[in-house]
Amino acid sequence: MNRKELFGIIKKKKSFLCIGLDTDIDKIPQHLLDFDDPIFEFNKQIIDSTHDLAVAYKPNIAFYESLGSKGWESLEKTVEHIRKTTNEVLIIADAKRGDIGNTSAMYAKTFFETYNFDAVTLAPYMGLDTVSPFLKYKDKWSVVLALTSNKSANDFQYLTDKDNNEALYETVLKTGQTWGTTDQIMFVVGATKAESLTAVRNAAPDSFLLVPGVGAQGGSLKEVAKYGMNDHCGLLVNSSRGIIYTSNNEDFAVSARKNAEELQMEMSVYLKDADLINL
Amino acid sequence: MNRKELFGIIKKKKSFLCIGLDTDIDKIPQHLLDFDDPIFEFNKQIIDSTHDLAVAYKPNIAFYESLGSKGWESLEKTVEHIRKTTNEVLIIADAKRGDIGNTSAMYAKTFFETYNFDAVTLAPYMGLDTVSPFLKYKDKWSVVLALTSNKSANDFQYLTDKDNNEALYETVLKTGQTWGTTDQIMFVVGATKAESLTAVRNAAPDSFLLVPGVGAQGGSLKEVAKYGMNDHCGLLVNSSRGIIYTSNNEDFAVSARKNAEELQMEMSVYLKDADLINL
Repeated sequence: MNRKELFGIIKKKKSFLCIGLDTDIDKIPQHLLDFDDPIFEFNKQIIDSTHDLAVAYKPNIAFYESLGSKGWESLEKTVEHIRKTTNEVLIIADAKRGDIGNTSAMYAKTFFETYNFDAVTLAPYMGLDTVSPFLKYKDKWSVVLALTSNKSANDFQYLTDKDNNEALYETVLKTGQTWGTTDQIMFVVGATKAESLTAVRNAAPDSFLLVPGVGAQGGSLKEVAKYGMNDHCGLLVNSSRGIIYTSNNEDFAVSARKNAEELQMEMSVYLKDADLINL
Repeated sequence: MNRKELFGIIKKKKSFLCIGLDTDIDKIPQHLLDFDDPIFEFNKQIIDSTHDLAVAYKPNIAFYESLGSKGWESLEKTVEHIRKTTNEVLIIADAKRGDIGNTSAMYAKTFFETYNFDAVTLAPYMGLDTVSPFLKYKDKWSVVLALTSNKSANDFQYLTDKDNNEALYETVLKTGQTWGTTDQIMFVVGATKAESLTAVRNAAPDSFLLVPGVGAQGGSLKEVAKYGMNDHCGLLVNSSRGIIYTSNNEDFAVSARKNAEELQMEMSVYLKDADLINL
């Protein structure tokens, strides 16, 4: 899926919602434990109930990995179920992989061949060599970690280069854009404050941004839309816990839909305000 | 395993060799394809043939991951086989994971609970929040990526901070040491040039360094020992392809041993030269 197609789906669904599938065996409703594969059953019901509202799903790989080989089976079935259900969502592996050479090629193979993801989150520290094996795949996205909102983001991301007076995260944004087209490279931008978002948009005006910090992590959707939206939306805003864990009962998927719908409705207003859709 | 115990094993084996298990189904000898689990069979024979020469094994997780859930089963059996064979090696997951919060906690669970690794390589970009869940486990190591030898390491690792005039990798080394003790934190240092190793040792005099760049990647063991060794050795030097893929025949494990032994013999000389062992 390229940038134009993604924007088309955003306009059609009046949504830039990404639903994070951080599926935790200790947090899903108890009655699901009777199923052969509780993790997949949970994801399936969430997907069936929300796929018209979401433009992306983002399985958080750590949660599957922690279950061993069984977790990877649940992941595989989840991706297959999304593919069977709709071709109008982007499926993002939140894996934050970062290596080089044949190791990085193996990671690309994992997520784009072994599993049929559209996009993978990647760590920038080793530079282009991490990303280049992923760029060889047509219509796939590398989502490069740029700015995060955790406390220790300050450890390194704001260090200022003495030559160009840029913070490291700005250099990552600028350098990252030279690695591929805006149909190939997206950035993870966890910050939800006006000031940071403005700096990010200055550094990467045309790129799609994956914003993980709305909902349980406390970011404001309004601020993100105001300071982050560009002429093709350019935003995928993720919510995980704020959608998928809002009920512990058999109605969990209905409850998830309700919460997803609230976000989608709010998003539709911001898309309308930016003259990107009619309501 | 703490630093003192690791140094004890280094002295006993007269070796600071780490063998990288970058096991690739397309590169292992053809006759192994008749086994139920060719990846595990390859690893098993390599381990049986080299465990007295190596102080660490480092499965490269990308290679297992790319095979889907079956790959993770091979990985699990490999770790179990090492544990059954010897308790005198460190088992390092070369995973370069890097996330925060409950996601990072899930990665720590994966490698320290679901799989029984002693150490995991981690990406520094998000700071302490990536590492802190791993530090909660006793006698386990976080191996933080600091300096790499790939071409695009220049993209970010050498950016110089305007306040303290330090390269980013030096800041990672200095900040990383504040996150835990020298029994908990190790660094990946891919550089094998004298100048870089001297800078690394100045920044992190007491830390263990995991050096991946010897052998197929072209680094000089002599330089690494000369500029990187400290009073408790402080080095784990990895070789993968230069050991495990030196024969394509049924004698591959014998050939691996021969190559491992050559490196171990050379290492014993450097340990002797540094007055850390007697020969």
